[in-house]
Amino acid sequence: MCQNDHGKMLVRALAVPSAKAPFEQTTIERRTLRPNDVLIDIRYAGICHSDIHSAYDEWGGGIFPMVPGHEIAGVVAAVGSNVTKFAVGDRVGVGCFVDSCGECEYCLRGEEQFCTKGVVATYNSLDYDGQPTYGGYSQKIVVKEDFVVRIPNVLSLDVAAPLLCAGITTYSPLKKWGAGPGKKVAIVGMGGLGHLAVQFAHAMGAEVTVLSQSLKKKEEALALGADHYYATSDPNTFKTLANQFDLMLNTVSANLDVNAYLSLLRVDGTLVNVGAPANPDTYNVFSLIMHRRSIAGSLVGGLRETQEMLDFAAEHGIVPKIEVIRADQVDEAYERVLRSDVRYRFVIDISTLS
Amino acid sequence: MCQNDHGKMLVRALAVPSAKAPFEQTTIERRTLRPNDVLIDIRYAGICHSDIHSAYDEWGGGIFPMVPGHEIAGVVAAVGSNVTKFAVGDRVGVGCFVDSCGECEYCLRGEEQFCTKGVVATYNSLDYDGQPTYGGYSQKIVVKEDFVVRIPNVLSLDVAAPLLCAGITTYSPLKKWGAGPGKKVAIVGMGGLGHLAVQFAHAMGAEVTVLSQSLKKKEEALALGADHYYATSDPNTFKTLANQFDLMLNTVSANLDVNAYLSLLRVDGTLVNVGAPANPDTYNVFSLIMHRRSIAGSLVGGLRETQEMLDFAAEHGIVPKIEVIRADQVDEAYERVLRSDVRYRFVIDISTLS
Repeated sequence: MCQNDHGKMLVRALAVPSAKAPFEQTTIERRTLRPNDVLIDIRYAGICHSDIHSAYDEWGGGIFPMVPGHEIAGVVAAVGSNVTKFAVGDRVGVGCFVDSCGECEYCLRGEEQFCTKGVVATYNSLDYDGQPTYGGYSQKIVVKEDFVVRIPNVLSLDVAAPLLCAGITTYSPLKKWGAGPGKKVAIVGMGGLGHLAVQFAHAMGAEVTVLSQSLKKKEEALALGADHYYATSDPNTFKTLANQFDLMLNTVSANLDVNAYLSLLRVDGTLVNVGAPANPDTYNVFSLIMHRRSIAGSLVGGLRETQEMLDFAAEHGIVPKIEVIRADQVDEAYERVLRSDVRYRFVIDISTLS
Repeated sequence: MCQNDHGKMLVRALAVPSAKAPFEQTTIERRTLRPNDVLIDIRYAGICHSDIHSAYDEWGGGIFPMVPGHEIAGVVAAVGSNVTKFAVGDRVGVGCFVDSCGECEYCLRGEEQFCTKGVVATYNSLDYDGQPTYGGYSQKIVVKEDFVVRIPNVLSLDVAAPLLCAGITTYSPLKKWGAGPGKKVAIVGMGGLGHLAVQFAHAMGAEVTVLSQSLKKKEEALALGADHYYATSDPNTFKTLANQFDLMLNTVSANLDVNAYLSLLRVDGTLVNVGAPANPDTYNVFSLIMHRRSIAGSLVGGLRETQEMLDFAAEHGIVPKIEVIRADQVDEAYERVLRSDVRYRFVIDISTLS
């Protein structure tokens, strides 16, 4: 670890200098440890679809150069003087955000993602001092201990990384909307999010159906715990499954025929979106009224629930299927994600960053 | 009461012979009482916006000639041999449907509107024998006792009529989505449905805000129990009220700027639609995700809940403001409803039908 003239740490990172530019290996600064900070040696960083949206500046407001990555798994390398929860050598993770006000009703109930002051995102955000945040595609990160979670020993760090965003993003709505025994749950999309959602919903005790464009991933889905699998390219699917599901988790970030999917919900059923298409969706109000259905959205989860999810994953042996890549393969990996050519999550081996 | 050659009753009614045609006074048949039937002398029938959609065949599938009317208040004139709940002279009401299978999970839990066999609507429907149903714009109706509710004595029959659809349509979602002490509830639209919703939400203990196009009805809304009133034509309204409401009940059947209304909801807030625009609505999935908001729909309510609503209305003195009209004024009333020129519900005095 180097220090620059101001006493800050200099660490190697993968950055995009501007929207859609290729990644470059570069050096960024990390702040000197404050009393409540933890310094983490990052071992693995997952690639999330939202990294691509951000690096391509598709949602606007991108801060460049940008170091993406909010699926971070590593080992504690140092702790600030007031840190009580972690010690050097602990296996830890960091997810989508690294600070929040700590005082609003949402922070107080452990749902920091809804902080009324606004959470500080792990990258492409400004911290409360106005400094840009840099994410997990880097060798080290400094994070307030309250925003660090413990990775159970039975989870390898590489497979743990994607749980920090893809895992909590699917676990939280399944929990909130009551996936469990006696409930029929459909998972729309069998990708990075979907293949974790199948495992969580199954472990929670629900009857799980995967709705995917083709039947290509059927065997894998059944092996992960899905009870049924249907291709949405077959129009019969929408007849066969009409009025079936209590809950449908949509992990796809393309626009759907919302009315067609709503028609698969029972009375009081909910379609929860965790993928966000760039264009608006449309629906007929009648599709909601006639069966008292709902459309909802869910945003990752708070720190408490993220720890709960990791413990649940450890207990039930839930891990993502991953493809570990080198630091120099990230551009190619982005292109493959966009072609849906990944089963099911890319994870960067940070030791290949030099 | 007359009988025709088949022993059926002949009763006078207001019918539209074809879509959008003017109303005509005519004679229809009512079935002879079966053992579980109640014969009701109709005194008042409310005019619901959906009567207009149906009479104009805007939703398709209209059965003509059509006798609309599903807000029926009257007095029991005769009962079948097995009827136990009602006696001649009882003050009773009939709402949106007159039969259901009685055996499915929804019927068993008193939510007949979701009957899996399909409820028989009070008019513009076929009963389980394949006969068209005729609604409340008529002198008498024969209905299975299970689909008849008791009108509490403190409610006059004229004001009771609109409660049978407009009342239950607003009461049911307010109840289901927890309008009550500590909750901020917005009522979108201050018409036939909205002015009842204000009263119910207030009586349930919620803090009630009316969102109406203009400030024209402000004084009346406050008198009915609203705590606040804002004009949606003023763009400042959407800034002032951002992230405020736990529940928003949309009683308007025109298309809204859904994203703008969603932005007024708190985390976990729900926009419940009871009005159904003819065209699809659009929304950005981000508007749902960022605050874990929902869009839902609600469809009237079951028989048990309709009785509960009437008893609640009686207990809290909740009645619609109505304008009583003669049978020969219905065409004009329809036009006035379409111009929003009614405060707040038209009710036909059936004694003027001869």
